[in-house]
Amino acid sequence: MRLLEERIRRDGIVRGEDVLKVDSFLNHQMDVELFAEMGKEFKRLFEREEITKILTIEASGIGIACVAAQCFGVPVVFAKKSKTKNIEGDVYTSKVESFTHGRVYDIIVSKKFLGPEDKVLLIDDFLANGAALMGLISLVWESGASLAGAGICIEKAFQPGGERIRNMGVRVESLARVKCMSEETGVEFCKEREV
Amino acid sequence: MRLLEERIRRDGIVRGEDVLKVDSFLNHQMDVELFAEMGKEFKRLFEREEITKILTIEASGIGIACVAAQCFGVPVVFAKKSKTKNIEGDVYTSKVESFTHGRVYDIIVSKKFLGPEDKVLLIDDFLANGAALMGLISLVWESGASLAGAGICIEKAFQPGGERIRNMGVRVESLARVKCMSEETGVEFCKEREV
Repeated sequence: MRLLEERIRRDGIVRGEDVLKVDSFLNHQMDVELFAEMGKEFKRLFEREEITKILTIEASGIGIACVAAQCFGVPVVFAKKSKTKNIEGDVYTSKVESFTHGRVYDIIVSKKFLGPEDKVLLIDDFLANGAALMGLISLVWESGASLAGAGICIEKAFQPGGERIRNMGVRVESLARVKCMSEETGVEFCKEREV
Repeated sequence: MRLLEERIRRDGIVRGEDVLKVDSFLNHQMDVELFAEMGKEFKRLFEREEITKILTIEASGIGIACVAAQCFGVPVVFAKKSKTKNIEGDVYTSKVESFTHGRVYDIIVSKKFLGPEDKVLLIDDFLANGAALMGLISLVWESGASLAGAGICIEKAFQPGGERIRNMGVRVESLARVKCMSEETGVEFCKEREV
């Protein structure tokens, strides 16, 4: 998606060879007009699927998921990272290893909000090692819902998550796919359909 | 806001005298069509203010903040609950005591995204003891930005946060104000302008 790639080139900050900071528009400060354009693109990509629910994970996936959900006319459910007193009853659960935070945590979704009658689109801001996305996929499988696929804003295509998850047969659509990057030369994107 | 009050009566679940579960539409599963109506109402309430930024706190505030921000045409910034490797440089910080989780945590916002040139609207899903909202107010004060006020979805008016913060001179607009509740009789709302 050209608009997102241009924004990454303009405002993204590369640190080393694998950190891409996009906190000025994607995951700390959030440009909701850009989100609306990304939401339309997710809708275009998945328009043949009868999505009933969008599933994301807290925290930074929630904004783009909610804006995109308006294009689909469906509710968002977000997986929570730890069990709080305010969730009761049965939950689906899976484990996610966070490379950013260097720890493993549980994610949970109340069974009330996901079931065999649902067709689920996963949405998240980043795909790198695929740990968070795998956790979400496990929750969907556990629930018996159908999985339509995943809509990702930025995929680090040089990390293994995208290939691993596509090889499982899951449809993954990433709006910007970073082929490689460095502090000197900036970000290079995969060409359309280039893996 | 009648639409929200009706939704709370229909789908909210009261536990004891102070827990109101609205996880089917507000803070686990999220009804983005309802969010859009709440966003319009926040815009109507604050239309005379030249808001430049909406500030919220992860996680459950992010969805309503992003949808509301589309009505204002401004970006959202969300305060993060702990320092991650991906935030670098100077941050504004304050402490929040979570009654739900029974602990004190830091919230932070990068100094890049809030400053004296901003006029800030705070948005959050709940106001009860006011701890999270006070933390956000402190961040705004620390940044030198102007504070337009706070837009809250559900205020538990029988808890002290709303009165405390209004008494400080901060404008707080809550779309539904719960006067009292019980498992037997359900939720009673404050009448308009009733404290």
